[in-house]
Amino acid sequence: MNRSAISRVPGFLAGAVSAGIKKRDRKDLALIFSEVPACAAGVFTRNRVPAAPVLLDRERIARGRAQAVVANSGNANACTGKRGLQDAENTTRLAAQALGVDETLVLALSTGVIGVPLNMDAIETAVPKLAGGLRPDGFFEVAEAIMTTDTFAKIVSRRAEADGKAFSVTAVAKGAGMIRPDMATMLCVVCTDMGGPAGPLQRALTDAVAKSFNTITVDGDTSTNDTVLVLANGLSGLSLEGPGCASAFQQVLDEMLMSLALQIVEDAEGATKSVKISVRGAQNREDARAVAYAVAESPLVKTALYGQDANWGRIMAAVGRSGAAVDAEAVDVFFDNVRVVARGQGLGPEAEEMASNVLKQKQFCIVIDLGVGRAGFVVHTCDLSIDYVKINADYRT
Amino acid sequence: MNRSAISRVPGFLAGAVSAGIKKRDRKDLALIFSEVPACAAGVFTRNRVPAAPVLLDRERIARGRAQAVVANSGNANACTGKRGLQDAENTTRLAAQALGVDETLVLALSTGVIGVPLNMDAIETAVPKLAGGLRPDGFFEVAEAIMTTDTFAKIVSRRAEADGKAFSVTAVAKGAGMIRPDMATMLCVVCTDMGGPAGPLQRALTDAVAKSFNTITVDGDTSTNDTVLVLANGLSGLSLEGPGCASAFQQVLDEMLMSLALQIVEDAEGATKSVKISVRGAQNREDARAVAYAVAESPLVKTALYGQDANWGRIMAAVGRSGAAVDAEAVDVFFDNVRVVARGQGLGPEAEEMASNVLKQKQFCIVIDLGVGRAGFVVHTCDLSIDYVKINADYRT
Repeated sequence: MNRSAISRVPGFLAGAVSAGIKKRDRKDLALIFSEVPACAAGVFTRNRVPAAPVLLDRERIARGRAQAVVANSGNANACTGKRGLQDAENTTRLAAQALGVDETLVLALSTGVIGVPLNMDAIETAVPKLAGGLRPDGFFEVAEAIMTTDTFAKIVSRRAEADGKAFSVTAVAKGAGMIRPDMATMLCVVCTDMGGPAGPLQRALTDAVAKSFNTITVDGDTSTNDTVLVLANGLSGLSLEGPGCASAFQQVLDEMLMSLALQIVEDAEGATKSVKISVRGAQNREDARAVAYAVAESPLVKTALYGQDANWGRIMAAVGRSGAAVDAEAVDVFFDNVRVVARGQGLGPEAEEMASNVLKQKQFCIVIDLGVGRAGFVVHTCDLSIDYVKINADYRT
Repeated sequence: MNRSAISRVPGFLAGAVSAGIKKRDRKDLALIFSEVPACAAGVFTRNRVPAAPVLLDRERIARGRAQAVVANSGNANACTGKRGLQDAENTTRLAAQALGVDETLVLALSTGVIGVPLNMDAIETAVPKLAGGLRPDGFFEVAEAIMTTDTFAKIVSRRAEADGKAFSVTAVAKGAGMIRPDMATMLCVVCTDMGGPAGPLQRALTDAVAKSFNTITVDGDTSTNDTVLVLANGLSGLSLEGPGCASAFQQVLDEMLMSLALQIVEDAEGATKSVKISVRGAQNREDARAVAYAVAESPLVKTALYGQDANWGRIMAAVGRSGAAVDAEAVDVFFDNVRVVARGQGLGPEAEEMASNVLKQKQFCIVIDLGVGRAGFVVHTCDLSIDYVKINADYRT
């Protein structure tokens, strides 16, 4: 399959070059450009040590319009102070000049090492070539250029219809949590020829992010750079206020972001398994969420998953310390369809042996039924492997 | 040094046997006995899936009196339902009969695998021999018998004076957090000939635990069995209400529990380093605590410590996601006395090289000055090594 062919979105051009920010000759500078100004919305990291491009984008996106996104890998431009902010602004100015658009319509993304100034000479030299080489089928190159230690490029494309017309959506992403050392971290850009306005666009994005990226965790380490952007240029002739458009777009966006989120978990550092943690029977959604994250981020649960050990005792201990309202004697635990805990007690060696077969799979689900209510929450995570430690211990040394 | 000789406490007898609860012929059943009824206090896990002995002890200790503690390793007696509670009661009844004391004056401790019923036949057979072999210098054997995957026995003894008289304190402990797979987990018994009453004894214990065991973290996994008990038999002729006695006892207790807490971190599963995380300059103590734990439990920080990498970017990212009030441009970070971050920005390769020498040590301190207030908090932790993953992935399989 030619992945680049299916990813075109009317009015959008994209491309990437090797600017020399990363070591070795890998693509590290990418540009996405809409031929007409687009409605824009964004969701950003809640980390209180946000990177310079996050600060810049937050301010610019408040006006609900953008026309280009310039992204670099190899350097997070985080913890770089005033100089970092100037570097981010200068990067967008260089791109704006090359594209002939207003500087304030250009957004910036960075991912890579924290605390090192951007190589602005390299960026200044590369931008004209980058802008001159943009193509309608350049999205796959963008997905490649924002990779850090990702092992595969993450891109999704969809076409759908609403109100009798077609619209296209392409989204690229990289990373997850702070799964990647110094490689802060999770970035995503969504491009569509659906139209705005910005308010409904922001609500659609916030909603889709809550259901996708905000339900995955690799190591619980939220990065300084997490950013999800959507640019909607309206060239389909549709707008989110047209009949059926908002729901059609929401459905497509939800599916696409979930697909990218699952790709990120699949590609998590050192991970050998993708595991869905599904909590139900909680008194309320907050409790269900607390239990799901306590289990998904427990080092003991994650190492047991790596060891293919149906060690439900560690799951029960994590449930118990989650802070949620828990009645130990009401809890059931399943690995896929195999029940290993009924009303807080283990079902014995036979059940565990069946469960250990489930754990041999690359993907499976752990269901925790708290048995005290009707609320639920789902989190997607991975195991904690020897390779995770190796990669993260050795990264900079 | 003959460790058992220094640990005697007037009126206390202790000992341990191999009952066959653990695999192999290791000691796994221990008993501590005060020849006279003692004042008693306890601090227990906040895990909402507490083990049976925790439920039993909580109820019994409410009366402020105890005369014996029976402890087993190899089985946590957690997630064992009604049968587990009966087994804990029966264990204390067997000990009470052998010692000739009231059953309700016997407390129980368990540590080991979750979800498996206790081998009551083994305990019933072993208790008479155990009770018959108690000795004044048997505390070291108790410390050995409650070990699970601990690599050394944890025991401290002190003599001190107050109000013109001497008093003795001996404490044994094992484990930490849920650092040990299925080996739930942190147990400690303090024996002293200081006297009560129970109210001041409980306050002294709660205070000492807050400053010691509650400032260590290995993997953030609070166990189902954590218990700290103190028995004060008063045979020194002193009481906590005597002049200077409360403060003298508190000082000794603080030092002893901190010593045991640090022994636990030193012995943490797979750990190669003991690291003190000292946060200062926070707006309030809760913020300082949140930052300290976010850094101490970050898998990325812990793997960098293992790799001896002065990777302050990961520390800044953890600070930023801690939920505390943080001004990125006010934060300083030190490794021991080497400053690597000033006002949120890195101080360059030279500082990092000096810092990497600090990280080669087995013990060091990371100081994080938030620069926005005067509150502080200290947490003791360890690194996350390949061995941690190996041990926890392979434990049951």
